[in-house]
Amino acid sequence: MRSLEVKNRTNTDDIKALRVITAIKTPYLPDGRFDLEAYDDLVNIQIQNGVEGVIVGGTTGEGQLMSWDEHIMLIGHTVNCFGGSIKVIGNTGSNSTREAIHATEQGFAVGMHAALHINPYYGKTSMDGMVAHFQSVIHMGPTIIYNVPGRTGQDISPNVILKLSRSPNLAGVKECVGHKRVEEYTESGIVVWSGNDDECHDSRWDYGARGVISVTSNLVPGLMRKLMFEGRNESLNEKLMPLMGWLFQEPNPIGLNTALAQLGVARPVFRLPYVPLPLAKRVEFVKMVEEIGREHFVGERDVQALDDDDFILIGRY
Amino acid sequence: MRSLEVKNRTNTDDIKALRVITAIKTPYLPDGRFDLEAYDDLVNIQIQNGVEGVIVGGTTGEGQLMSWDEHIMLIGHTVNCFGGSIKVIGNTGSNSTREAIHATEQGFAVGMHAALHINPYYGKTSMDGMVAHFQSVIHMGPTIIYNVPGRTGQDISPNVILKLSRSPNLAGVKECVGHKRVEEYTESGIVVWSGNDDECHDSRWDYGARGVISVTSNLVPGLMRKLMFEGRNESLNEKLMPLMGWLFQEPNPIGLNTALAQLGVARPVFRLPYVPLPLAKRVEFVKMVEEIGREHFVGERDVQALDDDDFILIGRY
Amino acid sequence: MRSLEVKNRTNTDDIKALRVITAIKTPYLPDGRFDLEAYDDLVNIQIQNGVEGVIVGGTTGEGQLMSWDEHIMLIGHTVNCFGGSIKVIGNTGSNSTREAIHATEQGFAVGMHAALHINPYYGKTSMDGMVAHFQSVIHMGPTIIYNVPGRTGQDISPNVILKLSRSPNLAGVKECVGHKRVEEYTESGIVVWSGNDDECHDSRWDYGARGVISVTSNLVPGLMRKLMFEGRNESLNEKLMPLMGWLFQEPNPIGLNTALAQLGVARPVFRLPYVPLPLAKRVEFVKMVEEIGREHFVGERDVQALDDDDFILIGRY
Amino acid sequence: MRSLEVKNRTNTDDIKALRVITAIKTPYLPDGRFDLEAYDDLVNIQIQNGVEGVIVGGTTGEGQLMSWDEHIMLIGHTVNCFGGSIKVIGNTGSNSTREAIHATEQGFAVGMHAALHINPYYGKTSMDGMVAHFQSVIHMGPTIIYNVPGRTGQDISPNVILKLSRSPNLAGVKECVGHKRVEEYTESGIVVWSGNDDECHDSRWDYGARGVISVTSNLVPGLMRKLMFEGRNESLNEKLMPLMGWLFQEPNPIGLNTALAQLGVARPVFRLPYVPLPLAKRVEFVKMVEEIGREHFVGERDVQALDDDDFILIGRY
Repeated sequence: MRSLEVKNRTNTDDIKALRVITAIKTPYLPDGRFDLEAYDDLVNIQIQNGVEGVIVGGTTGEGQLMSWDEHIMLIGHTVNCFGGSIKVIGNTGSNSTREAIHATEQGFAVGMHAALHINPYYGKTSMDGMVAHFQSVIHMGPTIIYNVPGRTGQDISPNVILKLSRSPNLAGVKECVGHKRVEEYTESGIVVWSGNDDECHDSRWDYGARGVISVTSNLVPGLMRKLMFEGRNESLNEKLMPLMGWLFQEPNPIGLNTALAQLGVARPVFRLPYVPLPLAKRVEFVKMVEEIGREHFVGERDVQALDDDDFILIGRY
Repeated sequence: MRSLEVKNRTNTDDIKALRVITAIKTPYLPDGRFDLEAYDDLVNIQIQNGVEGVIVGGTTGEGQLMSWDEHIMLIGHTVNCFGGSIKVIGNTGSNSTREAIHATEQGFAVGMHAALHINPYYGKTSMDGMVAHFQSVIHMGPTIIYNVPGRTGQDISPNVILKLSRSPNLAGVKECVGHKRVEEYTESGIVVWSGNDDECHDSRWDYGARGVISVTSNLVPGLMRKLMFEGRNESLNEKLMPLMGWLFQEPNPIGLNTALAQLGVARPVFRLPYVPLPLAKRVEFVKMVEEIGREHFVGERDVQALDDDDFILIGRY
Repeated sequence: MRSLEVKNRTNTDDIKALRVITAIKTPYLPDGRFDLEAYDDLVNIQIQNGVEGVIVGGTTGEGQLMSWDEHIMLIGHTVNCFGGSIKVIGNTGSNSTREAIHATEQGFAVGMHAALHINPYYGKTSMDGMVAHFQSVIHMGPTIIYNVPGRTGQDISPNVILKLSRSPNLAGVKECVGHKRVEEYTESGIVVWSGNDDECHDSRWDYGARGVISVTSNLVPGLMRKLMFEGRNESLNEKLMPLMGWLFQEPNPIGLNTALAQLGVARPVFRLPYVPLPLAKRVEFVKMVEEIGREHFVGERDVQALDDDDFILIGRY
Repeated sequence: MRSLEVKNRTNTDDIKALRVITAIKTPYLPDGRFDLEAYDDLVNIQIQNGVEGVIVGGTTGEGQLMSWDEHIMLIGHTVNCFGGSIKVIGNTGSNSTREAIHATEQGFAVGMHAALHINPYYGKTSMDGMVAHFQSVIHMGPTIIYNVPGRTGQDISPNVILKLSRSPNLAGVKECVGHKRVEEYTESGIVVWSGNDDECHDSRWDYGARGVISVTSNLVPGLMRKLMFEGRNESLNEKLMPLMGWLFQEPNPIGLNTALAQLGVARPVFRLPYVPLPLAKRVEFVKMVEEIGREHFVGERDVQALDDDDFILIGRY
């Protein structure tokens, strides 16, 4: 797909400059379709609190549970409504190269500013295959590579990233492997965003990370911005640690989904295979919000511990 | 899908006010994918020549040959690149109510200003079924109903339109049945666009049509604008008649596709079941361009009669 | 797709020999998915009453309201369960050549015995385009061409059929244009099935039609078999005329869907844009069944006039 | 979907009884579509060599690179052509519960004998979510659960399996975690197939595994059958170890794809992100075949080391 919009393509440097990016949650209606009104509120709150970019349909946003037409629609919708105020990074990655190509073409065509790409999870491939996979899409526009071996079963080795870094479109890496890897890339001039909220403060201030692609910022966007922008802040980091621990006790976005429902900003609707945290954990969250301060969290209603019956779990949608 | 974008929804009156809307052609790359660069050029030329709206993926734009994800992507792309300069009307109609609902939700979500809806062609239904079909989608936003019995095998009776006119979202009707029907609606306060280029001048100036949804304006946008805006002009209308006759000698968009390829603004690539007009007809077109004046037509290259071998026909894409 | 199954391909002559083929109804569950148990019953009744073939997902079976994966699944299911007892003809036609190619490949791969192909309705094309369209698929296996201008807005001219008849895969034509056309083809050695139930008796016995592809046989399979197999039978034909008139008063399958629900063999679930016939017509049907004789109709429950509230109309499924 | 075919459903015990199941390779045409003729040959060879079941579209068969309609079609095709001679187990698992439900319904509708289900990889979920996921599909028919933490990033804990074992549809577990886990299940009366070729001999003869779901059997089906059926055979197991090592030096099915192309039974076409093993490894394979004996391998052509240029890598298909 060649297009005039190529000429309007976002400069990769504009992506590299971002410090706080939220892997935004996708809220649902009771029948499992997107709740776009709630979504728009969530994105607006992010913008108002100084978040600079959103990942649309990441693992947090449950891109893995979307059909591609839903996914591209959500990217197009986000660009259409908020593209002037926040950078829209579409998670158009896939373990199928065909799907990654198709989705990335479509995502850029509807105006996304950058693509997030994952190595082929589950199916897995060789390092050569990984390079071939990424090279099928990186030429299309600004690209962030996402390394999360805990999900993919496979580390993207620095050799792969070095090869990709020859492309002017490589904006950087969302890296979950730890400080040392962050430092290694940073020293090679490769931009890194921490993919681990509980490490991002140190990655940012001690190891050269540009910033964070965050889950926690869905809940406390202003505090996460502070953490990335206003200098070393051990006490704030410490204060947020229990919340981060709570959020990731089960695979993300189980904690996040539970939390946003209790904050009253998303309906308590789960697309399976996600199910809410149990009641005891939900009560814990209420206390945590009170300790950190309700005013730092998104939404305006009182936080509440929902009952089991309040949740709707959906398999067909 | 509920959304904040509802609040930004285009006012139906802004759709009603349009006089010249082009059912825009979709150009292809040699492998059958969209040629978005050529598409963007085509839309730009329309804007520069005073066309006020485009139908994306109409029968002219070959929506019937698109997968829905391609279709919604093209709508989102058009909004993203040109939504500030021209009204984007997505042909999200279908003979399947399910598909019409799904596509119309998605089209509005990516920012289209209005939807074009067709009665269920081929499958057909009763008048009651037709009303139920349209009522499944009209509440979503500004809507134009398209009546073209020559394609659908069934007339949308005025009774159906009268029922729909109770919705504030009914922008009007694209009507192909003739002057009398145009007059009937106009007298009832229902906005009509002529769906027949060869009748649009008289429909506009003698029978109250608001304007035209045009195929010919893909070729001569400035002249079609003149025909709709600058008062009765029999001589211009007469001058364009042979071109219109040529364009519709075979089912549209066969003539249009052939013409745009020869004008050098779209590659000579046809998605089957469309095939180019034969050589003799292609030579005729070149003469017609010379008679009307190359400068009135889109594109800047010399018009040429293409050889059979120049065309690429594609079944798998 | 090349395959060993090509070697097991049904002989075209076996398709040509069929006299009674039913365009089988697709019944639904209350949520709009297929009711395969009811479907299997319907097919079984057809087999028990001497029907020799079924069209799966024809316009009667509402192929136009299926996604392609549903459609191919239903073909594969029918082959899997009944392929040894009845010929399975998949309606893998489309107005998009790409879709027709894809669906026909898949249909033959899952074992269908023949394909039914339609000319490009709604989008329409030239006669050259029509030939190119059919030639994209006819090489794949035994093929029936379906001509129904009342739905497609365009007649398939005998020239097109003559060109296709050079292929050994052309089994014949399902023709709705009338006796004269039937006779013309028959005299040229082209097999014809009447596509109009009310004409099939005369087409068969006076104009050389091989048989019928029937809607009415969904209701009275034994009688339709009798009509095609046991010699001229004016009185039976006359007796069925009112039923046929009733069935086609609104676009098919509105009447059929209403009738099968009232006979208790399909749930009263309609996928939009179809809606049931009004109460007065439903009462009429009950009388008609009593006049012809309940025992000739499918199902074993008493026929009843359903209330408006009994019907479920579904837009999202 | 309710259906008569439920009554013909395969007995779970017939699935439990299988000892040698091949995770069959999917071969491609040069344009990336399935090469069904080659596929049919591959399945036939399996049948002739005593393999009792095939997994269609497993990770080995690259289900992760198929669209669902391709996938279901391939299942239906396999049932249609070979369902009487070999058990057809469709990999209708997914990390999206919606997709798993939809595919499993369709797979059983087209006649598959059992489903293979995976825990939600990449997206991951809690143990409660995992149970909810599997319970959404296990009621549909005989089910094998697949545990492969190296691909999914998450172990299916025995607790989950124990909960599922209450369903009469649980045929067993394809387990990759090792002998101890195999033993644990076996002692609880749960059927286990080894998912590791290099461990299957010992799992079978020392730890109670029922048999193997094998990749290697694509190449040497007769030897794998011997290994599972004809008693402890250390020397055969030893003899095959280097081949197994070679096959899994890079993520499967990279080795297998390379091997089958060199044996002349599949075209050297790779869907990305898979790429062939490098030349040195390809030469190694030729030697290995000679050592084990060409006659034990599938195909009849001489094995050869292909050149880089012989391979076709495809991103768009």
